[in-house]
Amino acid sequence: MKVSVLFSSGKDSSLSALILDRLGYKVELVTVNFGLLDTYKFAEETAEILGFDFRVKKLDSEILEKALEILIKKGYPNDAINYLHRVSVEEVAKEAESEAVADGTRRDDRVPMLKLSEIRSIEDRYNVEYIAPLWGFGHRTIKRFVERFFIVEIDESDKVKKADYEAELRELLRRRGYNVYNYFPKEHMQSRVIGIKH
Amino acid sequence: MKVSVLFSSGKDSSLSALILDRLGYKVELVTVNFGLLDTYKFAEETAEILGFDFRVKKLDSEILEKALEILIKKGYPNDAINYLHRVSVEEVAKEAESEAVADGTRRDDRVPMLKLSEIRSIEDRYNVEYIAPLWGFGHRTIKRFVERFFIVEIDESDKVKKADYEAELRELLRRRGYNVYNYFPKEHMQSRVIGIKH
Repeated sequence: MKVSVLFSSGKDSSLSALILDRLGYKVELVTVNFGLLDTYKFAEETAEILGFDFRVKKLDSEILEKALEILIKKGYPNDAINYLHRVSVEEVAKEAESEAVADGTRRDDRVPMLKLSEIRSIEDRYNVEYIAPLWGFGHRTIKRFVERFFIVEIDESDKVKKADYEAELRELLRRRGYNVYNYFPKEHMQSRVIGIKH
Repeated sequence: MKVSVLFSSGKDSSLSALILDRLGYKVELVTVNFGLLDTYKFAEETAEILGFDFRVKKLDSEILEKALEILIKKGYPNDAINYLHRVSVEEVAKEAESEAVADGTRRDDRVPMLKLSEIRSIEDRYNVEYIAPLWGFGHRTIKRFVERFFIVEIDESDKVKKADYEAELRELLRRRGYNVYNYFPKEHMQSRVIGIKH
């Protein structure tokens, strides 16, 4: 069975893909892009290192505009990131050939995180299975898995070349003349998988 | 790394064990018993079929008495089963050699189900990792896995030879002269793994 894993090149979505591969799924990594930055190139590099199929899913920039609206209204990124995540899952789920959609959200995460009611709605509407392999694991267990399997590059958000929702949302905020650090925490560490341990 | 999987011989705890095995854990199946029934023998049979280490964890019958009290007070089994489950996880977690404790609870389950606050408390107090591999999967995904991997015997609760908490709790209720069907639904289907597909 094929599973489309929403992929940022970070350790969580990489681990999620690796687990599904071990459970017998045919894994395809999907990186969402709104046309502002070409960060999906970094995801493509990591996908190659991991050895999984990869594609970019272009989404309408209006979705990112809506997320910006939410961000400015709320003053902090949680709801905006959750919105981008939910829409991304839905857009992949509604593709005709989708059987299963997965992501790298974790038990101990707050953002992004789908509600159970949102998951059931997506599963029912698009006749698709949603899978979050890391929901079963705490942060210590995940840390151990990541150390076992991956070589990870860790740095501050602005420096790491990672294809997550945040990168393009921050970029749009910047282009509109806002101070990014009024909306995003300054010392937010990001990670990207740059190697695999066999 | 070793993981102790709370094991009833049912499809969920069997699948949980199989997933952890595929992720590289050394799996040990642990069946809890309160000394009322020897249903752990059925769990031992299934453990042998699955090819994992197995042991019985004897727990004080006072715990079962407490569960009976909760059951009678509430009038339905949810809180009593949750109590038995939480205590069982804790008792395995507090063993000196425990590194990780797992169970077969699922994303779409209501009972038994640990709260996130309970999990974090157990992880912190006993310096152990709690893992619920099936939290990441919906019922359709789990059904597909079960069909792929196991041969399952399905029947009504009273007939299936399964080592779950319910069996001994129902037995204690019966011995105390209560009508079991005033507390448990009559048509509750139970399942037990009796074969593995390679």
